[in-house]
Amino acid sequence: MITGKNHIGYSLSAEGTKTFRTFNPKENTENKEVFTEATEDEIDNSAVLASKAFIKYRNISGTKRAAFLRAIADEIEALGDTLVHMYMQESGLPEARAKGERGRTVGQLRMFANYIENDAWRQPTIDKAMPDRNPIPKPDLRKIYIPIGPIVVFGASNFPLAYSTAGGDTASALAAGCPVIVKSHPMHAGTGELVASAIVKAAKDTEMPEGVFSNLNSSGIEVGQQLVSHPKVKGVGFTGSINGGRALYDLAAKRKEPIPVFAEMGSINPVVITPKAIANRTSEIATMYAHSITMGTGQFCTNPGLILTIESEATSKFISELGKKTATIDAYCMLHPNIHSAYTKNGNEVISQLETTLVAEYKGNPVENYAKAKIVTTTGTAFLNNPKLHQEVFGPFSLVVQCKNEAQLLQIITHLEGQLTGTIIAEKEEYAGLSELIETLQDRVGRIIFNGVPTGVEVCDAMTHGGPYPASTDSRFTAVGNHAIMRWVRPFSYQDFPAELLPEILKK
Amino acid sequence: MITGKNHIGYSLSAEGTKTFRTFNPKENTENKEVFTEATEDEIDNSAVLASKAFIKYRNISGTKRAAFLRAIADEIEALGDTLVHMYMQESGLPEARAKGERGRTVGQLRMFANYIENDAWRQPTIDKAMPDRNPIPKPDLRKIYIPIGPIVVFGASNFPLAYSTAGGDTASALAAGCPVIVKSHPMHAGTGELVASAIVKAAKDTEMPEGVFSNLNSSGIEVGQQLVSHPKVKGVGFTGSINGGRALYDLAAKRKEPIPVFAEMGSINPVVITPKAIANRTSEIATMYAHSITMGTGQFCTNPGLILTIESEATSKFISELGKKTATIDAYCMLHPNIHSAYTKNGNEVISQLETTLVAEYKGNPVENYAKAKIVTTTGTAFLNNPKLHQEVFGPFSLVVQCKNEAQLLQIITHLEGQLTGTIIAEKEEYAGLSELIETLQDRVGRIIFNGVPTGVEVCDAMTHGGPYPASTDSRFTAVGNHAIMRWVRPFSYQDFPAELLPEILKK
Repeated sequence: MITGKNHIGYSLSAEGTKTFRTFNPKENTENKEVFTEATEDEIDNSAVLASKAFIKYRNISGTKRAAFLRAIADEIEALGDTLVHMYMQESGLPEARAKGERGRTVGQLRMFANYIENDAWRQPTIDKAMPDRNPIPKPDLRKIYIPIGPIVVFGASNFPLAYSTAGGDTASALAAGCPVIVKSHPMHAGTGELVASAIVKAAKDTEMPEGVFSNLNSSGIEVGQQLVSHPKVKGVGFTGSINGGRALYDLAAKRKEPIPVFAEMGSINPVVITPKAIANRTSEIATMYAHSITMGTGQFCTNPGLILTIESEATSKFISELGKKTATIDAYCMLHPNIHSAYTKNGNEVISQLETTLVAEYKGNPVENYAKAKIVTTTGTAFLNNPKLHQEVFGPFSLVVQCKNEAQLLQIITHLEGQLTGTIIAEKEEYAGLSELIETLQDRVGRIIFNGVPTGVEVCDAMTHGGPYPASTDSRFTAVGNHAIMRWVRPFSYQDFPAELLPEILKK
Repeated sequence: MITGKNHIGYSLSAEGTKTFRTFNPKENTENKEVFTEATEDEIDNSAVLASKAFIKYRNISGTKRAAFLRAIADEIEALGDTLVHMYMQESGLPEARAKGERGRTVGQLRMFANYIENDAWRQPTIDKAMPDRNPIPKPDLRKIYIPIGPIVVFGASNFPLAYSTAGGDTASALAAGCPVIVKSHPMHAGTGELVASAIVKAAKDTEMPEGVFSNLNSSGIEVGQQLVSHPKVKGVGFTGSINGGRALYDLAAKRKEPIPVFAEMGSINPVVITPKAIANRTSEIATMYAHSITMGTGQFCTNPGLILTIESEATSKFISELGKKTATIDAYCMLHPNIHSAYTKNGNEVISQLETTLVAEYKGNPVENYAKAKIVTTTGTAFLNNPKLHQEVFGPFSLVVQCKNEAQLLQIITHLEGQLTGTIIAEKEEYAGLSELIETLQDRVGRIIFNGVPTGVEVCDAMTHGGPYPASTDSRFTAVGNHAIMRWVRPFSYQDFPAELLPEILKK
């Protein structure tokens, strides 16, 4: 069923000579399927096709685009166990996660379908003419949002379905009326091809123009670079590392015509635990966080990588309990040997810093590619003085900072880079005194969770998944929820148009 | 009344040694007031003050911010003739324009005041918890838009009031809850200082935090560069040339933390006249456009610099009439000798291109700094092959392109850079056949005007003032109307917050 070829519009194409295979981290073996990287010509063809498709696709009604999105969801479900097995084979993630993520992916597609069925999301705004106004008449003006053009989507390593081929970026762009070219993630090219085939089948069945979707294989950075630089491409969606996202942002900013890049990048998701909470609920919080830190082997962008506390006996007890509990949770494999080795290397680098110590790590003897969860601690002063301690360690890792006092804790927050989330764990009797902490944290993050964990990103309208740089390259948008569609549209005004030439939604 | 100093928060400051004077283009003399350019320390002080003010200002209620905006409008009006005379002295623009632009400026401030008095503009979105949901409970999520931080505003040469010190960018940023630092335009530093003093008085009277506004003098590019690079600055609003806007955009993109730049830059505002319209309404359209081209001495960003027609006898007659009418309209002075000499140079460069001829120019013998309006014509083929003909000639200048046929006209539109506006002049019986033209034009512009002129930008919610690059650096926003506020805000989510810690608008 896997061809290893690129989907360029409705054709399968493999003109290149550069091939690669994906890897099963659980078995520690290469998978057998061979993928052919897209050539410059194939990349250009996909962009030209997308640009032609845009002319038709942008005029297809919301109802028809919704039918297309629903057909994609149906086709993904119709792939059944084939998709689940390929997902597991290429990510090492367990079956329950595969099925859960598939559910989220089709859920997102259907959510956007419901959202665009009614044109209200295009925010029709009508200012009627006032021909008798003095000193000059007021013209008739009517505004709606229109799509910006072909969007390139970069699949994420840690969400082979929900943030990849038919993930949130693709779903929101297709919903907006923008064709999509996916730069498939090299770690799960087979999962990508299966989902791409579902999208192509759905596009044909619902009579969408050829070029509304393409899927390109790549093992390095060249395909992505060429796509972002292509004059026919008008926007970019990316989920991944700061280095990768920033490189694409820089490339897009250097174009003759710069284009918007929405890159959702790393985050260490600071968690603040107040002195009273840490004393009153030591074990409860330690258990909750041991699970949050190790969930999905720590491979979530909202993983709590930084816990801010104030030094005390209770804090010492909490750290010790958190370490013990984390060390007993079964190890699991990471997405890829490269991710596993980066985890080990980055974690060790943190531990090697001054005044920084390893509290506990997974006690078992894990097999190849399995991550040893680690709890590390340092002082507030050491953290403030050492930017190396601020860096994300992607995996089941968390650094507990013991601050001298509240002032130092606040100072640390103001010195953090932008983050997707912040979390506050506090007792009811402390609420009245939390306003400075909330505001200081709000300035650095896109979402604050109260008395909970940052892992788990609910897909709904009130969700903000994004935040000040480098959490994302444009904090003015969210990557999750219906409002993510606003990244791919622009306002357009009709002045003094005859009614017969106005779009239906503006004829009032 | 003019001190020539910088407003750094509530202090007047002139630590620098670099001074300059403004110019009266009508009298062709330097004005007597001397302005002191801001130093590096003064720039840093203004940014640090703005950043401190932000912590307070973002929490000031919409009602109080509205009172501040209204007080600014009142104080501007209270400047009376002093402001009108300074405006005229520094721009050469006539009294009616000064008063009209002042009306627009205070109107914008009051419009934003009305808009923010009710918090609905912050788009409160509430998704309530579902604790019993399977397989996992749904958390309580509540989202609103919050301000992004201190904004730097660059005054525009051609709108000393409405797009400068207290213009649309300043008004929308202050409305959003963002402090503003204005990089005053060197051509109207006195007008800028007067308006700045009105803003500072209003800020004190309504008890706004010091640093909510600063106004910095500058004669070169250094002050602006340092402001855009300052880590405390979180956004930029600019109106001006492509070179200036792009340089700031590049600088902002290169920062460690890139920040959004909304630059509204040049535009040639293509106008399409159909064969029937040009034949049926030759004189009417020629008269309408002779006035639009010369209005404000052509110094509007929506000036119709490009008229696309299909060659015919009627078209020849139209061009000749347009030339005659334009040549008889009284010349007027431009904003500055530099703008006048650029106008002459750029216009002559267009005229010197192959297959391009001067149809007519103002027949009088204008005095120094007065612009000779010019109508120039070329062929569709010459225009397609020569990018020099696509460039804006800022001033009372328009290039009429005679295309071979409709296909060539459409081809020209697809090859244009992004524009603020497009205009279609057509007859009723042609409407049914216009869809391809409308869509082709829509792809290149932010607004299409039907059977009218592009000059005159109505300030209302349904207005889009912006467009694909280089009309603006981010087509996803408008610079005019209430929705311009969205450039300076980002979504923020509260998850599982106790009701007592939620902002009032989210307590439901």
